[in-house]
Amino acid sequence: MENNEYRLISFADLKSFCKQVYKKVGVPDDEADIVADLLARSDLRGVETHGVTRLPIYIQRLQKGYVRSICKMTLLKNKGATTFLEAHGSMGHVASYKAMEIAIQKAMEFGMGCVSVKDSGHFGVAGLFSMMAIKKDLIGYVLTNSAPMMAPYGGRERIIGNNPLSCAFPTNQYPPVVLDLSCSVVPSGKLILCRKKGEKIPLGWAYDKEGLPTEDPYEGYEGGGSLAPIGGYKGYGMV
Amino acid sequence: MENNEYRLISFADLKSFCKQVYKKVGVPDDEADIVADLLARSDLRGVETHGVTRLPIYIQRLQKGYVRSICKMTLLKNKGATTFLEAHGSMGHVASYKAMEIAIQKAMEFGMGCVSVKDSGHFGVAGLFSMMAIKKDLIGYVLTNSAPMMAPYGGRERIIGNNPLSCAFPTNQYPPVVLDLSCSVVPSGKLILCRKKGEKIPLGWAYDKEGLPTEDPYEGYEGGGSLAPIGGYKGYGMV
Repeated sequence: MENNEYRLISFADLKSFCKQVYKKVGVPDDEADIVADLLARSDLRGVETHGVTRLPIYIQRLQKGYVRSICKMTLLKNKGATTFLEAHGSMGHVASYKAMEIAIQKAMEFGMGCVSVKDSGHFGVAGLFSMMAIKKDLIGYVLTNSAPMMAPYGGRERIIGNNPLSCAFPTNQYPPVVLDLSCSVVPSGKLILCRKKGEKIPLGWAYDKEGLPTEDPYEGYEGGGSLAPIGGYKGYGMV
Repeated sequence: MENNEYRLISFADLKSFCKQVYKKVGVPDDEADIVADLLARSDLRGVETHGVTRLPIYIQRLQKGYVRSICKMTLLKNKGATTFLEAHGSMGHVASYKAMEIAIQKAMEFGMGCVSVKDSGHFGVAGLFSMMAIKKDLIGYVLTNSAPMMAPYGGRERIIGNNPLSCAFPTNQYPPVVLDLSCSVVPSGKLILCRKKGEKIPLGWAYDKEGLPTEDPYEGYEGGGSLAPIGGYKGYGMV
């Protein structure tokens, strides 16, 4: 895209557009508001890869019935500071937002809180959920699994995700410290970009489908390879 | 040491020896038992770098009064599942053992528990504390700070630790899954070893005192350099 093709869109307009799209496919007003707000704020934070650019995919998944348009959460377990919820394939954004609200309530009451959610869809930017805790002067910590894109250490088959994690710390008058990362050295998108540009990748980013280090971005991901975890066996252990 | 110089010492003898040494420098019987057990078990797990080999250093610190020989813990804060303790320079092994006992009690009551300890000494092997939780069918998670040996990302001055972390998961009939690592690509000991052997180190292990990547093990640590965090800026963010 040429530089002069960029158009400035206000946050309010972008959010409102997303919200209308979600409502069109049957998402209730309050839930459409949650997910639209998260998507538009992803772009506002500069994480365009996980923001409004994914709207078409998210909408397709709703239309195809892969993801529930109305969030449904069932309580599987509740003990003191901890809660375990089943989301029945609900949208990750909405399920995670609601789970974080419960975790915050728990933390206010017990000093800390932990909510686990099973069977929810893609939730976008992890950092937006950990940052919810900051408003209550709490530390937020969010973990999720992801699609398999890494091999076990020394292996060759992609069977584990690069499982993102995020922490957010309030710091009184300073901007909060927010950590938001996945456990692979680079995201898959970076290899796809290098392949398109015809560039080699440094050793240490990825392995080919035989589990050997590769400098070829295609072999390292699209050709069936796997992303390298940060710190080798250390990052593998962490996911 | 030549191979034929190795001597087999039973766990009970090794623990008993350590315990006697600690008692000699004024550590109470029950606390000497805790730390001696942890040191001997470090060697039993194969983590010799953090086990009985450190006994002379630990004893010197007690004799010089850098570390308290009788553990003293003061409650600074207690709320629901969380506790914050001041250890007044007590031995890390004993303070952490007692803190983990409280965390386990909290977890039994509230579903999870978190105990923070300030001002305690070196605690040895992080994994031994997270593994305490397994006996109660709980997941253990332990974090600590360490002496500064890494520079902030892009910097050159060693101001942050490689802050070890450990998780331990019970797995019913299988051996537990235990993760126990620091956030640098390699420990400082590995660079010292390479320097002694006259070997180069791979790029990506360390930076020299100007903050530039180095293949010289001396420049990378003893000469004032800094260890590289796992995943570059990712590992830096995590510590």
